[in-house]
Amino acid sequence: MQALILAGGSGTRFWPLSRKRRPKQLLALDGERSLLQATVDRLAPLVAPESVWICTTERLVDAVRAQLPEVPAPQILAEPEGRNTAPAIGWSLVSMPPAIRQGTVVVLPADHRVGDAEGFRASLAAAAEVAQRDDRVMTLGVRPRWAETGYGYLQLGDDIGGARHVVRFREKPDAATAERYFQDGQHLWNAGIFVFRGSTLLSHLQRFEPAIGKGLQRIESSPERTAEIYPLLPSTSIDYAVMERLDDIATLPLDCGWSDLGSWEALAEVIPGDADGNRCRGDVLAVEARDNLLYAEQGTIAVVGVEGLVVVRDGDTVLVLPRERSQEVRRIVDALRSDQRQDLL
Amino acid sequence: MQALILAGGSGTRFWPLSRKRRPKQLLALDGERSLLQATVDRLAPLVAPESVWICTTERLVDAVRAQLPEVPAPQILAEPEGRNTAPAIGWSLVSMPPAIRQGTVVVLPADHRVGDAEGFRASLAAAAEVAQRDDRVMTLGVRPRWAETGYGYLQLGDDIGGARHVVRFREKPDAATAERYFQDGQHLWNAGIFVFRGSTLLSHLQRFEPAIGKGLQRIESSPERTAEIYPLLPSTSIDYAVMERLDDIATLPLDCGWSDLGSWEALAEVIPGDADGNRCRGDVLAVEARDNLLYAEQGTIAVVGVEGLVVVRDGDTVLVLPRERSQEVRRIVDALRSDQRQDLL
Repeated sequence: MQALILAGGSGTRFWPLSRKRRPKQLLALDGERSLLQATVDRLAPLVAPESVWICTTERLVDAVRAQLPEVPAPQILAEPEGRNTAPAIGWSLVSMPPAIRQGTVVVLPADHRVGDAEGFRASLAAAAEVAQRDDRVMTLGVRPRWAETGYGYLQLGDDIGGARHVVRFREKPDAATAERYFQDGQHLWNAGIFVFRGSTLLSHLQRFEPAIGKGLQRIESSPERTAEIYPLLPSTSIDYAVMERLDDIATLPLDCGWSDLGSWEALAEVIPGDADGNRCRGDVLAVEARDNLLYAEQGTIAVVGVEGLVVVRDGDTVLVLPRERSQEVRRIVDALRSDQRQDLL
Repeated sequence: MQALILAGGSGTRFWPLSRKRRPKQLLALDGERSLLQATVDRLAPLVAPESVWICTTERLVDAVRAQLPEVPAPQILAEPEGRNTAPAIGWSLVSMPPAIRQGTVVVLPADHRVGDAEGFRASLAAAAEVAQRDDRVMTLGVRPRWAETGYGYLQLGDDIGGARHVVRFREKPDAATAERYFQDGQHLWNAGIFVFRGSTLLSHLQRFEPAIGKGLQRIESSPERTAEIYPLLPSTSIDYAVMERLDDIATLPLDCGWSDLGSWEALAEVIPGDADGNRCRGDVLAVEARDNLLYAEQGTIAVVGVEGLVVVRDGDTVLVLPRERSQEVRRIVDALRSDQRQDLL
């Protein structure tokens, strides 16, 4: 089995730690290893680093290579320009030798967290078995732990050979719908983890998105023209381009402490709290303070008498906001963009 | 007239900006110049830098000299060890040539803020005139602007030659008493600013505190023994040693935007607020945030959706606490002491 890790993201939800040249997947948010490194580590007993492929961007490729010396350098692919996941996955597959891409490939994001790595691998192995046996595209859905409105959902159907048929991909729901999905037991969070034969996925992509399919064929026959052709591929997600259009996709549920770590709040939830509920990282001093996320990447954070805050300190910046508003860090990033503060982006 | 500026303090109320080797008086808290430099600047039209004396400690003397090249170096005195204000003032006076200390001396702290420098100098000049004319110890009291419990008060008595007799020095009052002092118009805040003939003050000190008086005489006759004698002087304040015991001390009220800048909150009150009531210094980005003090000595502070906080960032540290609890920064300092964090003290 090959693993293809999508590591081209440039999210800003962990600003000030995440920056253009240091996006979330390259950060060690909840441990010693970066989320990307942890993803490779987690796969290793099942998929050795020699069988790992990384799709990232020109801007990040040197940093990715430095973080992953165990992955063969030619398997670390640099998109000339980010074009969303459908081109990224398609191009990565055509970059694999044809004999390799006949086999099973798992695609997964570089910036998620998994509490139970062994359970994760067991689910992945089970999904790979179905994918191989039925030549079926499989996805791993996460059993909802609350009524999240920030994720897409997979609607479960009948049993197909030990897996569950995915009746439909559901967009991010409103609160009432999310509550219903959460209660009915018939929906999973879409975690963006897929398992398939590479050649099968490629043929689906060619069928549903011929413009991408043709572009990829031209790149495969003339790889020296990648920089010219790739930026012209339609920018679209693999969910939209392929997954939502397949009528025989199936899923296995993942129960492994999964989190997409989508915000400072999500990170707070996975860092163990101290006696006062403070979740601390780095050199932190808290006096009569409760339920804060205090994250000192560099230097020292000292707080007195505050509650429910995120305080993050890195080399040049400090961010303070209420935990329940941690999504709003994007407003800071927007303001920095409109102020052209390249030094802080 | 000579000015004696007491600059030996080592307060911690502006931690993390104020540190052992960088106490409050050396910080430029509300402008470009440090509070010490601003004190010298403020006096200059009335007392030229050539007539300024600074009493500081060994630890700070190099930094003080660097900040005040306009003050003659021999007039920047370094206590071998801090022994409170009575020894500091007495020793500074015996360090002045006898002819100089016959004249008028104003003693004032190095770390206060004055909004109206011209009004300040006018009050000082008027007090100096009375001190010289009557050979009387004068103090400048500040007309209370609220019922402060953190200051001592001067109780006003009869008119004496254009000034008001000080009936009594009052310790820091409880809230009800402070309210009464504030309402009755018969009390002023004790600002620790005194004007007198130097020789007169010295003779009072010899009379009331013979141990200090004798020690100072020995230092004057054998200045090379200062380091040995000075640390043995009783550590006591000039208020307690002399001022509270004089029955003919008089005062003139000061109405000049005085503040002792005793806390981050006190600083917030003198920094102009923006449209949202945020008082900012340095590189600050505030989104939907109100009434905060955001003080970036180095680097950038970004906040979203917070209210009434103090956020201070310097080279290695960030402090966050509610404005109304800004006195409690001392709890951080206490914790650092008990953790032996010399690097942060």
